[in-house]
This record gives sequence, C-alpha cells and structure tokens, in this order.
Amino acid sequence: MLESLFTPKSVAVIGASKTPGKVGHDILANLIQGGFSGTIVPVNPTTDRVLDLPCYENLQSYGSPIDLSVIVVPKASVEAALKSSMDAGAKAVIVITAGFKETGLAGAQQEKRIVEMCKNRGVRMLGPNCLGLINTAHKLNVSFGGRMPASGNISIISQSGALCTAIIDLASMRRLGLAKVISVGNKGDISEVDLLLALAVDEHTRVIAGYLEDISSGDEFVKAAEVASAAKPVVILKSGTTAAGQRAASSHTGVLAGVDSAYGAAFKRSGVVRADTFEALFDYTTAFALQPLPKGNRLLIITNAGGPGTMAADAAEKAGLQVVSLASNLSVALKAKLPAAASIGNPIDVLGDADPERYVAALLAAQSDDAVDAILILLTPQAMTKPAETARAIAANLSGHKPVLAAFMGGQGVIPGHEELVAAGLPDYPSPERAVGALKAMCEYAAWRQRPPRIVTRFRVNRRRVERIITRRLQSCRYQLGEVKAKDILQAYDFRIPEGYLVTSTEEAMEAAERIGFPVAMKIVSPDIIHKTDMGGVRLNVSNKAGVRDAYDLMMLRIGQLAPKAVIEGVYLEKMLDRGLEVIIGMTRDPQFGPMLMFGLGGIFVEVMKDVTFYLAPITGDEAIQMLKSTRSYEILMGKRGQKGVDLAAIANGLQRISQLTTDFPQIAELDINPYIVGEVGTVPIVADARITLKPTDALCRLF
Amino acid sequence: MLESLFTPKSVAVIGASKTPGKVGHDILANLIQGGFSGTIVPVNPTTDRVLDLPCYENLQSYGSPIDLSVIVVPKASVEAALKSSMDAGAKAVIVITAGFKETGLAGAQQEKRIVEMCKNRGVRMLGPNCLGLINTAHKLNVSFGGRMPASGNISIISQSGALCTAIIDLASMRRLGLAKVISVGNKGDISEVDLLLALAVDEHTRVIAGYLEDISSGDEFVKAAEVASAAKPVVILKSGTTAAGQRAASSHTGVLAGVDSAYGAAFKRSGVVRADTFEALFDYTTAFALQPLPKGNRLLIITNAGGPGTMAADAAEKAGLQVVSLASNLSVALKAKLPAAASIGNPIDVLGDADPERYVAALLAAQSDDAVDAILILLTPQAMTKPAETARAIAANLSGHKPVLAAFMGGQGVIPGHEELVAAGLPDYPSPERAVGALKAMCEYAAWRQRPPRIVTRFRVNRRRVERIITRRLQSCRYQLGEVKAKDILQAYDFRIPEGYLVTSTEEAMEAAERIGFPVAMKIVSPDIIHKTDMGGVRLNVSNKAGVRDAYDLMMLRIGQLAPKAVIEGVYLEKMLDRGLEVIIGMTRDPQFGPMLMFGLGGIFVEVMKDVTFYLAPITGDEAIQMLKSTRSYEILMGKRGQKGVDLAAIANGLQRISQLTTDFPQIAELDINPYIVGEVGTVPIVADARITLKPTDALCRLF
Repeated sequence: MLESLFTPKSVAVIGASKTPGKVGHDILANLIQGGFSGTIVPVNPTTDRVLDLPCYENLQSYGSPIDLSVIVVPKASVEAALKSSMDAGAKAVIVITAGFKETGLAGAQQEKRIVEMCKNRGVRMLGPNCLGLINTAHKLNVSFGGRMPASGNISIISQSGALCTAIIDLASMRRLGLAKVISVGNKGDISEVDLLLALAVDEHTRVIAGYLEDISSGDEFVKAAEVASAAKPVVILKSGTTAAGQRAASSHTGVLAGVDSAYGAAFKRSGVVRADTFEALFDYTTAFALQPLPKGNRLLIITNAGGPGTMAADAAEKAGLQVVSLASNLSVALKAKLPAAASIGNPIDVLGDADPERYVAALLAAQSDDAVDAILILLTPQAMTKPAETARAIAANLSGHKPVLAAFMGGQGVIPGHEELVAAGLPDYPSPERAVGALKAMCEYAAWRQRPPRIVTRFRVNRRRVERIITRRLQSCRYQLGEVKAKDILQAYDFRIPEGYLVTSTEEAMEAAERIGFPVAMKIVSPDIIHKTDMGGVRLNVSNKAGVRDAYDLMMLRIGQLAPKAVIEGVYLEKMLDRGLEVIIGMTRDPQFGPMLMFGLGGIFVEVMKDVTFYLAPITGDEAIQMLKSTRSYEILMGKRGQKGVDLAAIANGLQRISQLTTDFPQIAELDINPYIVGEVGTVPIVADARITLKPTDALCRLF
Repeated sequence: MLESLFTPKSVAVIGASKTPGKVGHDILANLIQGGFSGTIVPVNPTTDRVLDLPCYENLQSYGSPIDLSVIVVPKASVEAALKSSMDAGAKAVIVITAGFKETGLAGAQQEKRIVEMCKNRGVRMLGPNCLGLINTAHKLNVSFGGRMPASGNISIISQSGALCTAIIDLASMRRLGLAKVISVGNKGDISEVDLLLALAVDEHTRVIAGYLEDISSGDEFVKAAEVASAAKPVVILKSGTTAAGQRAASSHTGVLAGVDSAYGAAFKRSGVVRADTFEALFDYTTAFALQPLPKGNRLLIITNAGGPGTMAADAAEKAGLQVVSLASNLSVALKAKLPAAASIGNPIDVLGDADPERYVAALLAAQSDDAVDAILILLTPQAMTKPAETARAIAANLSGHKPVLAAFMGGQGVIPGHEELVAAGLPDYPSPERAVGALKAMCEYAAWRQRPPRIVTRFRVNRRRVERIITRRLQSCRYQLGEVKAKDILQAYDFRIPEGYLVTSTEEAMEAAERIGFPVAMKIVSPDIIHKTDMGGVRLNVSNKAGVRDAYDLMMLRIGQLAPKAVIEGVYLEKMLDRGLEVIIGMTRDPQFGPMLMFGLGGIFVEVMKDVTFYLAPITGDEAIQMLKSTRSYEILMGKRGQKGVDLAAIANGLQRISQLTTDFPQIAELDINPYIVGEVGTVPIVADARITLKPTDALCRLF
C-alpha cells in the first residue's frame, strides 16, 4: 500500500545540500550513512557533486525514473519539485519543507494545492512540515531525526517531530530496536489512519507506538485502530487532553463529555492502549515488544529484599492485579532449594544474599505454575548481589510462555544488569511501580483481545414517526425538543413513557387528569423556559380535580409574572411515577467520533461526582453492561444493604436503543433521558423527563 | 544529641576481618577508604593486623577509650562485644549483626536484652540488623552499603538496608550529593523519631528523605516529624499501605479508616511530603535539595516544541497548578528578542531551532515576573539543539528566588545537558509529568509551611457527666453504647439532640409522644439489635396517639418473632426532625496515631463513594474546615443549583467538639454521628443517630 514510501528502490533528495547542519545535507547524509542499498539521486542546480555522489540539476537531467522523492526545497519551490517528482515517476513523496497549514490561511491553501496535485496523480505524500521517515529493515533513513537506530520490532508514528527525535534517542539509550519511525507532520495526505493500517500488516512491526495531538477523522481512526489492535498492540500518548475540553453544550451529557471522554471512548472501543505520560508510552511499548501477553492478571513477585517486594505488591493491588502464591507442590519443591529463611509466599523472598541460582529456581517454579500469569523479578543491589550474572541466568531460563518483567533498582551498581536484561529481551524498569504499570497495560490489552464478537442488536422501532417529527422541527428551525416531543420520539423507539397529555386550558387539564387518574404531575411546556422548577412551572403529586385547577391557574399567573415574554405551549399532565432508582442515559455527538453514549446514576452522582461512563455508538449489549459496571456507583445498581438490585439488562437495553436512535438520525446532536427511572428485575424503566437537541441545518430551515 | 554516632573521634570495629566480602572486612575497608581522620580500632582476637592497621585482641588490650563501636560479630558474641564497648567508654554503638527480632520470639528477647544494656548505661544504639551509617561531612562510612557517596545536602533514613544501597547507588548516578545515610534496621533503640529530631537541626542536611515500613510510636512520630518539617522538607515513602488495612471495626468510621488513612492523616498533620513511589521519593527530594520553595502555585513553561509543552500544561492542570502567562510588558519585551513565529503564551514556545540565548531570554523574563512562582524548562533534541550549552546558559542565569525545574527529554543525545543541569543545581526530569509532580510536592509543602498557627479551641462542656456514664458502662462490661447513651454523652459536649424519651410501655409511649408533640419517631433500644430497620424496629413520622400505640405494640410483636432472645431496653421516642443535609462525623482510634476524626457526606456518599476525609485529633478550626473542603462532595455543602449552602462552621465546630471528647476520653474507641443533620447558616446541627464503642478494660469490668 505504501511500498514506494517504505521500501523504494530509488530515492531522490530534491534540495540536497553540501552544507552540514542544513536539512538538505543532513537527510542525504543520513540516507547514505544508513546504508541504503538502492539508488540515491541528489538534486541541486548549483553543484554537481554532493557527499561524493553525482548531483543533478533536476530530475529530467537524471533521466531515469525514481520511486520516492524527498523534497527539502524552500516553500516557493515545493510545487515545482513535486511536479517534477511525479513526472519522474515517483509514487510517493515526503515534503519536509514547513510553512504550510501550521502558519495560517495562506499556508493552508498552498497545502491544499499540493495535496490535490498528489491526489490527482495517485501519489501518496508524507508531510508537509515533517521530519521524514526511517525504515530500519530497508536501511532507509530519509529523516533529519538523527542516525539510523538499531533495528527492532517497534514502529513509531509521531505528530511531533521534536518528540520523534527524543523517542529515537531514548530508544537507543534503552537499547530498544525500532522497525519504522514516521513523522506525520501536517498530515496533508498520509495520516495515522493510513499508517495504522499499513503497520497492522507489517511483518517487521510487533508493537505500534504513537504520539498524537489530534486525529484526522474519528470514524476512520476507530476502524483503523481496531484493525491494528486486533493484529498487534497499539500504544498511544494523546496530548492536549485537559484544557481544550470546553464546548458549548445544552445537555447534561454534552456538559459532562469533554474532548478527553471522546478519545477515551474511542480508544476503549478500538483496543488502543492509552499511555498517560511519555514514560508510560515507553514502558508499555517495551513490555509489548519483548514479552508475550499474559493469559490473565495473576502476578507472582520474586525479590531479594522485603521493602521493594511490598512496594510491588501494593502497586499490583492498586492496579487491580491479583497477587498470588505458588501452588503448594511447587512451593514445597522450591523451599527445598532455598535457605530456610527464604519466604515462599508472594512475594517470594530469595533473601539479600541471593545468588543467580536462587532467582532461577524461583523463576522456573513460577513459570511452571499454571495459576501464575505473569512474573515480576525485583533485584536490589546488596553486598553479595551479582546483577549481571543474575540477569544472564534469568534471561537464559525464560520459557517465553508468560510475560516476565524486571525491576533492577539502583543506579551505576546495577547497570550491567540492566544491559544484560534488555539485551536478552527482558523489559527492565527503574521501579516496581513502573513495571506493574506496564503489566497492567498488558493485562488490559490481553482482555480486549479476548472480548466477545461485537454484535449490535437492531430493535424494531417506528423510525418513520421520528423522521416526521425531526423533519418538521428542522423545517421550522426549532432545534430544542422539550419533554413532550422528546418523549414522542423515544416512545417511537419503544421507550416507556408515563401516560400524559398536553393541555391548554383549565378545563382540558381537569379532563386529562381524570382520564389519567390521580395523582398527576403538571409541567409547563415552553421553548423559552429551561429551568421549569425555578419558574414555578412544575407541580407534583396533584391529587384531585380542584388541585389541578388551582395548579394550572397559579402556574399561568406565575409564569406571566416571571417570564412575561415566554411562548407557552401549554401544560403537560402525566401520571405520577412510583419512586425508583433514577439514572441518566444520554448521547452527545462528538465532532470527531460521532454519537457517544453516556450512563450515570442520577442526581448528585452525575452532577457532583461526575460518575459517568462514555461509549461510542453503535453499542453492543455486552458493551452496554460494561458501561454500567465501570461506574463507581455500580454497587448501588446491584442493590445495597439488603435492597434488591435493579434490572441491569433493562438499562443496557435502553442504552442500545438510544444507540440505534442516534445512529439512525445524525440530525440529533444531543439527547438526555434524565431521570430514567429503573426498578427491580422485570420492571420496564420509565422516561421521567427527556430533552433532545437537533443539529441546525440551514438547508431545511424555512424561517421566513 | 547523637554526636558520638555521627561525629566520633575514634571508632572500634569489633569483628574486623581480613577476608574481602565479609561484612567485618567491608565495613573496615569502607571506613578507611572514606578518609576518616579519627582513630580506627579494629578488634579481632585471631590476627594482629587488618588492612594495614594494628588489630587488637579486644578493647582492653587497646587500652584507650573509644567513642563509637561497630559490632559485626556473630550473634552469640554480641552481648559480650557490647559490654566491652561500653566498658571502653563508647557512647554509641552500631549493631550490624542480624538474627534478632526479625527471626522470632527468641531473637526478640535477645534484642530486648541488648537494648536494656544500652539504656542502663546511657548508650545509644543503631540497629541491630542494619547496614550501618554514613556521614559524608565527617568522612565517616561505617556501613557495608558501598563506597562513600559524594557529599551533599540530602540525608536518608531507611528501614530497608537493601533500599539504602539502591538509593546511594541511584544518587550517585543522578549526581546527587548526600549528607547522612542511616540504616535503622530493627530500631531497637534509635528510631526514625530520634533521627528526624537530629536531622532537623543538622546544618549539613537540607532535605530528609525516608523509607519506612512501620513507625515505632505514632504520637512521637507526629511530633518529631512536625518539628523536622518546620525546619526542612521531609519526604517519606511508606510501603505496605494496601494489604494490611483490614481491621475489625464496628463503626462506619472504623470500617472506612484503613491503616493508610492513618498514615495519610499523620503525614498531613506533620507536613511530611508523601512519595507514593520510589521514583517520586527521588524526584521530590532532588527538587527540594536544589531549588528554593515556590511562593504560590503559578507555573510558567518554556519549551522548544509544542507537544511536550502541551503535555506539561496538561499535567500541571491535573496537579492543580495554575498555568499562567507572562505579564504583558514582559511579554512585549520578550517578543522583541524572539523570532516572529515564537509563541509568548504559556507555554512560551522558543521554537525548534532555539539557541541558548532564546532560552535565557525567556527564563529572565519569567524570573522577573512577580506573578510567576515557578518555572519549568523543557527541551527536546532537534536538529539545531545544543543541550549542553543551553543547560550551561540556563544554570548561569538562575536568580535563585523561585524554583526552576527542567525536563530535557530523550536519551544519549541530551545526556551532556542532563549532567550540566544537575551539576549546576537544576533538577532535571526525564518527562514533563515527573517534573510537574515534583513541583506539586514543593507547592504543597510550601503551603504547609505557611499554615496558620495551630490553636485548638477548648469548649466548655460537662465532662463529669461523660465520666460517670463511661465508668458505669466499663464497670458493667458493656462496651457498645447505643443511640440513647451515645446521645447523652454528646449532649454533655453541647451537641443538640432531638427531644426524646426512653419508654417501656404503650402508655408511657403515648404520654411521651404528647409531651414531645407530633409527629414523632420511634426506635427500638436493644444492645442485641444493630440493624433496627431490618427488624421492624424503626417507625418514623408517627402522627397521633393511636399511631404511637399501634407502632409500639407492633414493634414488640415483630421483635419478639424475629429476635426472641434480644434484651429489649425499651423504645426511644423522639421529635421527628426537619429534613436537612445528612453528614457523618466520627472518630476511630488508630493503634499508632490515636484518635482520628472522619468527615463525609451521609448515606451513599460514605457507603459507596467512600468520599471521606480523615484528620488526627486534636484538630483546629482551620483544619476542620480543611476536612470539609477536601471531600469531593464539598460543592454540595456549598449549595448547588440555587440551593443555599449549609453552615460549614457549625460542622467544623462539631468536629472540634468530637476531637475534644475523644481526646478527653481515651476510653472511647470509636464514635459515629450518623446522620448529623445540618442546615443553612445559623442552624444548629442535630445528632439524628449516634453510636459509641468503648475500649474493653479488664481492670474495671466487674462481671462476676
């Protein structure tokens, strides 16, 4: 797919320079020094030799076709260079030159032009404003990110050129080999989506690590990331998560959903392992690159000192891993090989004077225990400790069936150990907590891999009715759907709503109340009144006809005083609901990722605790249940202190139907069902209140 | 205080050995190589020279007095060595030998004997089962923890010998200088308390870093830590926090308070900076050792790349730091010195090709801005970056008035920069997040230093009444105080309780209800019934005499059926309370730290969200308010959505009165006021229900 980019036979460097320090020089030098075995074609009209290679005035004068063209000329000459590259048969180009979209409108227009030039001729472009790329397997280094890194199985996608350099640098220090390193720059053409798909099938890549600041297309990203994650781990550090999170939103769901929730939901759906810090990106990637995935989350710790062992056990417990002990037969056998003072619990303490043999005995026992999914080996330098020998002995005895991570603590004194470990393919961390963090990431990814197949249920609904309501509203440019209309729509999607009527006079109100049966609730219906209660627009538990008359008249009086300009559509009367547990379910449409569902326990749980979960629509039944489970208030749903739990499946069903509704109707921008009253198993939940906001579309609006 | 330990003129090594690798050899070798300028007296009956020094058969044959004796003999000979050391005038001893308390009961008894020997002669002992100690200023290395570290201003107390070695090792790699390193071992005599007090006044120590697994005396620890923290930062990594947290407890407060809450409360009170991980211990200590404290939490970030700048801003926002911009005049002046594309927001982006001058210009501007409390400098290696020169230039321009931290990202490529930074006294972190973590620790410590003076209010109360109730209960061996007695006690400490009476017949119940006025609440009183509601033992809102009669009779009938063996003391009738906000305040007595107060919002907030805070008693008014503020549900107390807030001062007052009650009466083991009903400002809160548990004391119990 991107062969000409990753494995070209011939590469032109347009703007090659003789002057060290200039980008056009450094890229050519890196390409030569990297050992590229194909043809290198430097182009520069002002000289005929660069770095011992013949240099051409232009590609015509070179005469033969090229596969990949790297453009390092000043911005004004980029278009010409691009054209000549394509004329010379280039199937891929890398535009290193900056000054495009990142500089403002004029630059964005220039970028659009070069992107279109490429699209018209079916040529793929990396950049502009990027650092280039490295493919170690092909000995291709067309970047100014430094020397060719050691080859290995980690591929990197970075939206920050600077970070790219730092990553290459750090990988070298940590002795991690790299497969491909791609600086995406402005993502004019090739984006993370193309690269995820390409790296998913790249035989040299075992882990994909990425640094992203934004995502070009949410929908395509989720699909591509899911494909890639199904093939190999994708670890992403996404920056810019907190500050930008404020958007105008009229629903609860919208207010609670920051930009970060959407990325969180997208990563969760697509199996992306999220790194919260730069170090975590490295830590997780290293573990995935070097070790097999765990089958479960049962961890055994081996240590030569109590303190670090406790620290590791603490960290594991906090991370939700199970700290387990050896099976008793293995434990007895191991005990015979260790000094009497050694502790065969978990952690297994091989004591301060442990030699490599003791570590190996413990490791072999742990590896052969089926009830152990992962092993963490700690070493603290003490008088008799031999870090390097211990590392070698551990490395020589790895079975490769379950992940083994190490934390050799300390500095200079243990560095020989560090180097042996990494060289042997054993990830080594500076502290127990960091190692546990990496193991947790492995367990979560392994669990995602084992998820059930995604089957989205389609419910039979009255889609045409919703279509009619929405179209009529859009035509009259009324985008806020209050309780009455929102309930109409929800009823069409098989939600149960209390019996109710919109009335416009005292008499109608009394009639309707009798039809419904007492007690009733009465609520003002007006597009201009958002906080009905504050305006005296809500009366609950009205128990007889006289009460209905009084309430109706008083409501009109008060609203007339407090909001004289409000348009009043009437009063909505409905059956008073039995008390139950109040939850909120809703949807907000993320500009990147589309409809995003929310679930939370009602009232203060949502408002104060922000105890809500998000998931991208469309959602499966299993995912809906996961949404409930991942709130902190889940135990309330399950029933506390002898109270019966609520019907979880019914809530999940409601979430799935909102998922279907908002997937069917992209015109719905936001939706809240709040509260959604749920009861014991077998009870159908009821929509007590709801609100829907449509997306304004000038095309339909007939407001003349 | 510990002069003979830290700065002896003469040191005996009893058990000095010729054999490299033996502890008796290594300690002597370390002492000699460390450059100790006093007299060294090796003692070993089997040889007359060790490591080129004359070796003595015993201290008598040496003949002169010694200051410090280091004992490295087999356990059986420790007592004799100790005696001869004291006879030779040693004022301090270090017992390296292991095999004492850590091995079981016999060892504990032996340890007790040697501790008593020391106490009887006024000699201080470090150990047994320790690594020894290092005092760089005195060129004293009587440890087997490795070579003498570089001298500096960080002192270390470690309860794990292994970790001690790792710390020294890592400090050397990070080029951090150390003042004193003390391995406390079993803490037979000298504990963290002695050392905190000694290091508090040690002129060579600027920061105290500690690794602790347990604390010898909670009370003394808090006092010593407070003294030390008032003088200099104390950073402690406490391990063993999660697993052990389960204790039997009968109160809500007790159930919610794990061991970790107690340590958390103790650290908060005493100003100890808590490190949650081994890396954090180092990160924080480095910042404190090298940089001044910030005056506030306003942070300015300088970077040469957008990505890391965003990462730093994200981390700062999450950590509760304010990310601020330069004052406008400084911003204009700086803009003139930087290229047009540079961004003078926050972060200040000096661009990818930044030279040292640009960094310096930004640093000087930030240092001269009074609205900036702390500065974070990020550098990512790019084509033109000069890490070492930049580091030197930054270091040369530090004003020393506000903390400046750095994160030079990457590996080999930026290492010259790392070294320059640390050598120049600028803490350098591998990632923006780690640097922000250290800054947060600095801000929190600085805020603690600026706390108001601790003045504990004494309230006028009826102490004698409580004394009588408690004594009577202890004498009759009844340790659980139910609602009625608990309310009696609380009323004596000026808590408002609803008017109520204990009745024992239907007639009494009706009379009492009339006296109180309707509606009333009725609750069964029985030491055998904990969950009254489940037993039909609670009736609320009883609105007339007939209702009281029916409720009384039905209650007796039900309890008779459901709990036929329960001893019934009667029924408690009280005035129904107006609704208000329910909070819980309580106390549990920690075995280490004594009375620990708890505050939380009632009901589900406590039970499900565990949204509670703890503080050690006695508490000040200011601290009580801090307890309220540090719950997540604080905004509910403040009033949500147009509702009025509650009387915060009144809740704080309740906490202070519980503090006084439980400090006055150590017999009280646990206490819950749940719910404590609070209202708007000016409303006196009411104790709706309460429970007290006394500590069983055989001495008073007259159960024959």
